[in-house]
Amino acid sequence: MIQSNNHVVIMAGGIGSRFWPMSTECLPKQFIDVLGCGKTLLQLTVERFRNLCLPDNIWIVTSAKYAKLVKEQLPEISEERILLEPCRRNTAPCIAYASWKIKAKYPKANIVITASDHIVMDVYEFERVVESAMKFTSDSDAIVTLGMKATRPETGYGYIEADLSMSCPTNKEIFRVDAFREKPDLETAKRYLMKNNYFWNAGIFIWNVSTIVNAIRVYQPSMAEIFERIFPHFYTDKEDEMIKELFPMCENISIDYAIMEKAEEIYVFPASFGWSDLGTWGSLHETLEKDAHNNACVGDNIRTYETRNCIIHTTQEHRVVVQGLDGYIVAEKNDILLICRLNEEQRIREFSE
Amino acid sequence: MIQSNNHVVIMAGGIGSRFWPMSTECLPKQFIDVLGCGKTLLQLTVERFRNLCLPDNIWIVTSAKYAKLVKEQLPEISEERILLEPCRRNTAPCIAYASWKIKAKYPKANIVITASDHIVMDVYEFERVVESAMKFTSDSDAIVTLGMKATRPETGYGYIEADLSMSCPTNKEIFRVDAFREKPDLETAKRYLMKNNYFWNAGIFIWNVSTIVNAIRVYQPSMAEIFERIFPHFYTDKEDEMIKELFPMCENISIDYAIMEKAEEIYVFPASFGWSDLGTWGSLHETLEKDAHNNACVGDNIRTYETRNCIIHTTQEHRVVVQGLDGYIVAEKNDILLICRLNEEQRIREFSE
Repeated sequence: MIQSNNHVVIMAGGIGSRFWPMSTECLPKQFIDVLGCGKTLLQLTVERFRNLCLPDNIWIVTSAKYAKLVKEQLPEISEERILLEPCRRNTAPCIAYASWKIKAKYPKANIVITASDHIVMDVYEFERVVESAMKFTSDSDAIVTLGMKATRPETGYGYIEADLSMSCPTNKEIFRVDAFREKPDLETAKRYLMKNNYFWNAGIFIWNVSTIVNAIRVYQPSMAEIFERIFPHFYTDKEDEMIKELFPMCENISIDYAIMEKAEEIYVFPASFGWSDLGTWGSLHETLEKDAHNNACVGDNIRTYETRNCIIHTTQEHRVVVQGLDGYIVAEKNDILLICRLNEEQRIREFSE
Repeated sequence: MIQSNNHVVIMAGGIGSRFWPMSTECLPKQFIDVLGCGKTLLQLTVERFRNLCLPDNIWIVTSAKYAKLVKEQLPEISEERILLEPCRRNTAPCIAYASWKIKAKYPKANIVITASDHIVMDVYEFERVVESAMKFTSDSDAIVTLGMKATRPETGYGYIEADLSMSCPTNKEIFRVDAFREKPDLETAKRYLMKNNYFWNAGIFIWNVSTIVNAIRVYQPSMAEIFERIFPHFYTDKEDEMIKELFPMCENISIDYAIMEKAEEIYVFPASFGWSDLGTWGSLHETLEKDAHNNACVGDNIRTYETRNCIIHTTQEHRVVVQGLDGYIVAEKNDILLICRLNEEQRIREFSE
């Protein structure tokens, strides 16, 4: 039984520059069938909430320039629930926009926030965890984050340090957060991995609408003020104009900096459902099915010879032959070809300029 | 002053399978701008004879299926001089066809035979050599081949062993051939390179039309018979039908086997004009201009990082970034991508199947 108060807010405004040339600012990776499964990451994200939230309670926040893409890929989402940011202001203003807008019509909403370009391998465990967390926030003022159990000393993620000494009385799987930790260096990441109370911050947040609105009022009062001014105009002809005028005045700040690192009562739900933020070609390689030589191939008719540890992503090529490569990215899209060592992928932004 | 008896026969029926995916049976390499200079190899070949032969004395022999391509690329060549083979029968029937046809209208023709997909760097020296050789064959019954001075122990070419002890009285640069040698193994090629009387067989032949017709009559009588039967019908409505009926009956045999290795009086003109048969990606790499790291790039906007000794041929890509490759072919054409070590290129036929 899906709780009718459950809402999901999907943030779909990223530009995915680290996945060039597959992902470009015109068509970032959330709008792409990255896994070669016939569905884009955004479509997969929406699907993942099928059993958690009624279809009419799904909200997409994206850039105005991606409005057409979102409508094409998600024709079932009414225009009213596609929120368009007139400019990029990071996650805090994005979440504030959605929160005030939802509050205006659904003051009892219980919300899960997620990115649009992450993947989850074990959808059933994901459902169980989110459902359990939403049950928890439906009758508490808690801010809950999902903490991914680390499987490697990843330096590309932020970490959540939990106090595992005592779980919440009403949900034994939920614990108090001691601190949020920024992306560590490798040595620090290795130390975190040795401990059992450090979790990857997956950027998935669960709270009821009053909790987040109040938190923004307390920790980001000027941002709250902006949305209080827009509040009376949501769902009217003036909303669009107000957003265009006032949204750009929001500070460019992430929800982690704006709220998480400041708030007192934050909780973490440690979980393990095969999550990846697909932030790098390396993480995509890890996620995809590999052949006997550890190659991950997405595309038609890719043949490899004496090739290992490669990711080959060539969905627009009819045919690809790769011979004698070890540890490379081969990616082709829109007549742009990239061949690059996997361990040099942090230079892709430089290459794409 | 161009001799009006001079004719050139360009053989343009090859399928260029070793240059996959750039070259395919639908569009073999002679019809492609392989060098990225704005002209196809066929167009460059025709141009090379500009000062040697009148425009109306240029003949193209090709497969019927390439007729349209030839007409498009060489609109100045009249249809009458584009000879269409109904099937592939190697070079001897191709040359026989052209020879009898030319003889029917130009019994005093003096002919140079060439492939359509080779390249010549020093066109002036080429002109000088061919002009000198044609002068020689205009008043002798000699069969002259051009012998390229070897610069490396190439195993991909046949060799001509010359008797350098005495040059011809009428042309001091022309010598008797002792033997034709098939493609050698590396050890043998190294031995040839040490000697000064072994030359690469460039497949460029010079003779007058009576000489070659008589040679075919002597050494390939059944082939001669076929063209004697067609002979009265050249330039009539019946030519096409006769060719379709009788040409396929020719033996599938190269001019080297059919004539060169059998004839007694064969001459070689050793020369050096930067010739390459562009038979392999390696030879194309050698031919093209290289950057400071020995990369040869043909295509728009190709950027390389930590990359050396590569050939990158991506004329249909808008943009290419290659990082960290040494000694590879990267080729893209018609949505087919090949990445392969240069020293494995003999497997390209296998890859392309």
